[in-house]
Order: sequence, then structure tokens, then C-alpha cells
Amino acid sequence: MSEIVSREIQLTTRPNGLPETSDFTLIENTLNPTASDIVVKNLYMSVDPAMRPALSNGQTKLDETMQGGAIGKVIASASTEFPEGSYVIHRAGFREYYLSDGSDLNLITLEDESITTHLHILGGTGLTAYGGLLVTGQLAEGENVFVSAAAGAVGSVVCQIAKIKGCRVAASCGSDEKVAYLKNELGVDHAFNYKTSSISRELHAGLPDGIDVYFENVGGAHLDAACGQMRPLGRIPVCGMISAYNNKGARSEGVTTLSNLIYNRVTMKGFVVYEFNHMREQFLTDMRSWMKQGKMKYEETIMDGIENAPAALIGLLQGQNTGKMLVKLADDD
Amino acid sequence: MSEIVSREIQLTTRPNGLPETSDFTLIENTLNPTASDIVVKNLYMSVDPAMRPALSNGQTKLDETMQGGAIGKVIASASTEFPEGSYVIHRAGFREYYLSDGSDLNLITLEDESITTHLHILGGTGLTAYGGLLVTGQLAEGENVFVSAAAGAVGSVVCQIAKIKGCRVAASCGSDEKVAYLKNELGVDHAFNYKTSSISRELHAGLPDGIDVYFENVGGAHLDAACGQMRPLGRIPVCGMISAYNNKGARSEGVTTLSNLIYNRVTMKGFVVYEFNHMREQFLTDMRSWMKQGKMKYEETIMDGIENAPAALIGLLQGQNTGKMLVKLADDD
Repeated sequence: MSEIVSREIQLTTRPNGLPETSDFTLIENTLNPTASDIVVKNLYMSVDPAMRPALSNGQTKLDETMQGGAIGKVIASASTEFPEGSYVIHRAGFREYYLSDGSDLNLITLEDESITTHLHILGGTGLTAYGGLLVTGQLAEGENVFVSAAAGAVGSVVCQIAKIKGCRVAASCGSDEKVAYLKNELGVDHAFNYKTSSISRELHAGLPDGIDVYFENVGGAHLDAACGQMRPLGRIPVCGMISAYNNKGARSEGVTTLSNLIYNRVTMKGFVVYEFNHMREQFLTDMRSWMKQGKMKYEETIMDGIENAPAALIGLLQGQNTGKMLVKLADDD
Repeated sequence: MSEIVSREIQLTTRPNGLPETSDFTLIENTLNPTASDIVVKNLYMSVDPAMRPALSNGQTKLDETMQGGAIGKVIASASTEFPEGSYVIHRAGFREYYLSDGSDLNLITLEDESITTHLHILGGTGLTAYGGLLVTGQLAEGENVFVSAAAGAVGSVVCQIAKIKGCRVAASCGSDEKVAYLKNELGVDHAFNYKTSSISRELHAGLPDGIDVYFENVGGAHLDAACGQMRPLGRIPVCGMISAYNNKGARSEGVTTLSNLIYNRVTMKGFVVYEFNHMREQFLTDMRSWMKQGKMKYEETIMDGIENAPAALIGLLQGQNTGKMLVKLADDD
């Protein structure tokens, strides 16, 4: 195959606070595929909150093409496992084309769903919600659940699984449009805009008997309010703390209510999605079944073109998305 | 048996901040034992950090005699289970005499130890340390352990169990005398006075590879420093947060480093000693064996007379004790 020009995004300045588009550079990388390369044309890539701390802590290297979840189509291949025309998911986002030996690719087998769902509710995002709520959070039927960043990609799946399990769900988000979405589309019992209300008062109103499971995406003031209202033997699966990610050392606002962990014997536990890899089959079966029953909805916010990948990430950190924030890199043709 | 006058301590004003002796009142209660009463003369009573939140949250009733661990001698009894001359442990402290039907008494069977040890290292205090470190904290041999309030009754047992298990132990306390005690008597690897040093720097110095288990007694600034230095899969058993107890709503100083719970998949878990009641036999066997081998030392700070029980509790909250703070109520005669 002849030479390919791949446009790619690199981090050139480590951000202080909210990243700016000038912290990133769009470069052109010329690829020369050999016969043994699997050539992947990326169709969609994901931006995730967890990318923010990586920009500061050194995990994302300067002047190297960034990493992140992406879905591509194989456009040239000698591999029988990943033949031309097949769809693959991998971590080489932030670029238009990718050459692989196959070791870092996973084949996507599509059923009825759209391919983008494999970058969110049927992918790592969904598995994060599923494992974090059911395994780390040990959710039981009928419990009282609080979800923060509830209109986000993970949060919206958490809300719906909790409703499927017969729970009462309170949910926070950052705009009145998202409040309406959570109530009207996802069936959340009590949704509120944390920017214009008291988290503590809303939790008392929405879950007057207290919280059994707080699915933590935000940290800081959210955790301060929730922790004081945890019920005996409550659980706080800690998925993320997006409120802290733009701060030096990923420091959140101060949490002052942790002594309630003692009186009510509460467990707070950080988790990472790879802990749940062994459950992927059961997860896909459950999620597809819930989608078919109309119990698992999703929204996507899709920006267009590799040049907009930094803006997509920054927009995500500002809460501009409802549901999953994606970047479309190419048409599937 | 004829009439007995028991001097007793009642809470008359709910304290705001550090309690004052004027918040408590010494009353005289006249008891008229019947033939079916077990008459207990209290010898020693315990004051514990957990008594402080109870003064504010309503658990301790106003104008009623307070509750707390105590050891007494049966001075009149028709019971075969608790005959005259036997020693009993119960929750009716803060008074000189107590009439019981036996349902709330536990017999103490003394081996070589002094009777007061049953109010600390062989009692609830010791079991709190043992269960909190080994069960909730899931301590493994050779790990890196940080203990706060380490010269206190629970902390000093935690330090010694961790050393018995071959761990490297860093320990914080509030005076230079306590630092010397921790190093010279308890064999702690790195002890420091948090009032005159940086907790964060001392932890880096004492446990340069990070912390596997932080046994939490203090909260606030201690947790803020420790949480940021937890290692992958670290555990934070939360026994107490004494720094918060004198504050409104038991609020601590703000903790800002909790996002490290995610990256390192740390578990933080509040516990209460009754979770470990089923382990009491094994606990006593281990502790007595370690005491005989000289590996389990203790200190007592003993104040004299029921009239000094409020001052003992206040002194404990100010950190005046090394080891267990007790009040002697009567001679064993």
C-alpha cells in the first residue's frame, strides 16, 4: 500500500487548570505500510474525563501522538483475524490512521447496535458503570442511589441500571437541560442542577432516608454533601473526581464529613475498569437486552474532524456534553 | 443489703467545641438493692474518644448518668454466674455503684494480667486495633503502615501488631515525649510530632515507598497527607477522626487528596468494634501470648475518683494521655 498521511494530535504544553487548544498541536505523520501491517482508518474516537489527569501527571507524553479509545475500519490487511473491511477497537485514538500488528486490536462484532455504542455504553464506559455499580458498589434491589455527573457517559448508564434494579435514584448535573433529560428520558426520581441549588438540601429532598450507594464521579462539594448522608453499611464506588482534575495535584475542594464513614461503617473504594474485564460477556448480554427493551438509552455529542479533538476534550471537562462525547474522524466508506 | 450512695456523672450542657468540666454535674444517687440485684462496686472506668461525638449527637442523654466501659467487683449477689467477689465488665461507667440483673455483665477471667488491661489492650480497645488492622485493614506481612494518634490506647496496640507482623511502621503523635515512647518502647521505625512537623514530609521520609495501610484515628490534615501517599490497592481502615470530634457536625479539616483513591484503587472503610466480637477468643490468645513474649506493652494514665471523670475525658481529647486513659473509682478491697 502506498504512503498515507495521518493527521494526529500531540500535547505540546502541560496545562495548568483547564486545558486550552493551544496546549495541543495538530501534526502530519507520513505512514509507509508494509505487507505485514494491518492498516486501520479511524472512524470515531473517544474523549474521557480520565484523560485530564494524564495530561498533568506525565502519563501523556509531550510531543508524542496522544492515546485514547477509537474505532476504526481495516482498509488493508493480510491478517485472517482482522481482514479488510472488519471493524476494530483499540487505544490509538487522536490520529486518522494507525498501523498495527494486531496485538493491540480487538474485533467488534456488531449486532443491531450502531458502531459508536462500542465507544460508550457497550464499551469501557458502559463496563465502568456496570462493574462500578454492581461489583464495587454491591448494589442491591430497591436501594437509594445517588449519581453525580449523571448526564455524562458513565453516569447516565449508572442511573438506568439503578432504575432497572428497582432503586430510587437522585442525580446531579450541571444544566437545566440535563435535569430535564435525566427526569424525562432516563426516569431518574430526583434530578437537580448543582450549580443553582444546594446539593445537601437536594439529597435530603430526593433521598430522605439517606443514601445506600453514592456513585462518585465528581468529588469535592458533591462528596462532602453525600458522605454526610450515607446510610449504615453504605458504599461509595469512586469512579472519578472530575471537579479536581483541572487543579494542581488533582486536589478537590475539601471534604469535611468523612467521620460519617465510621458511624455508619461506610466503604469508599476506588476502581478502574480493567477489574471487570472478566465480566465483559455478561455485560454485553445484559446491556443489549436492556437496549432492546428500551430501558437503556443514550445520547452522543459528536464533534467533527481530528482538528477538533482538543476542543472536544476541553468541552467535556466543561460539561458541554450530554451523554458520550465523541469525535468523528472519517466516514465509513 | 442496706442503702448505698453512688456518686455519678451526668451531662447537663451539650458542649460546643472542647467540653468543659462545667458541662457535667456530679450527683448522688441513692440505691436500694433488693435480694435479686447483683450489686457491683466499680473499680475502674474508661474514657474513650468516641464519647465526644455522643455528647453532641444526642446519644448521651442530658441529666442521665453517662455510659461507658467499666470494671467492677460483685459485692452482693444471689447469682451463681456472678457470685460475690467476682470481677465483671460492663457499660455502666461514670458511677461508683451499679445494680444489675446480670444481663449486661460479662465475667472477667484473669490470667497473669492486671485487671485494668481488660479495659484496654485485652478489652474493646485492643480488639478495635486487632480487628481494624487485620480484618478491615487486611494487613499482610512486611507492608508499610502509618498509624495516627499512635501513642493512644488503640494506636499503640496497632503499632505493635504491625511490628509483630514484620511491617515498617510510621507513627504520628502530639508531643516529643510520645515520639520517644513510640521509638524506644514500641519499636516504631519512624515517629514524629505532627504539631511541629509536616505530616506529608514525615511520611515521605518514613515510608518512602508509600503506604499500604493507614490506620486512621485522626482525620483532617492527617488523612489529607496520607491519602496522597497510598500505594496501589492500599487500605484505610477508619477507626476514628478525633480531630473532628470537637467541631460542629463532627466536621474535619478539608481532605483534598481523595482522587488518589481512584488511581491506586484504595479502599477506605469505617468499622466498629462489635464487628469483631466473634474473634474474641483468638484475640485474647494472641494478645496474651504477645504480652508474655514482651512484644505487647502498654501505658496507662490513671486519674483518681469519679469527680475527675469529666477532666479525664477532656484531657483525653486534648491528648494528655500516653496509652489508655482510665479513672480509678475504688480500691479492690
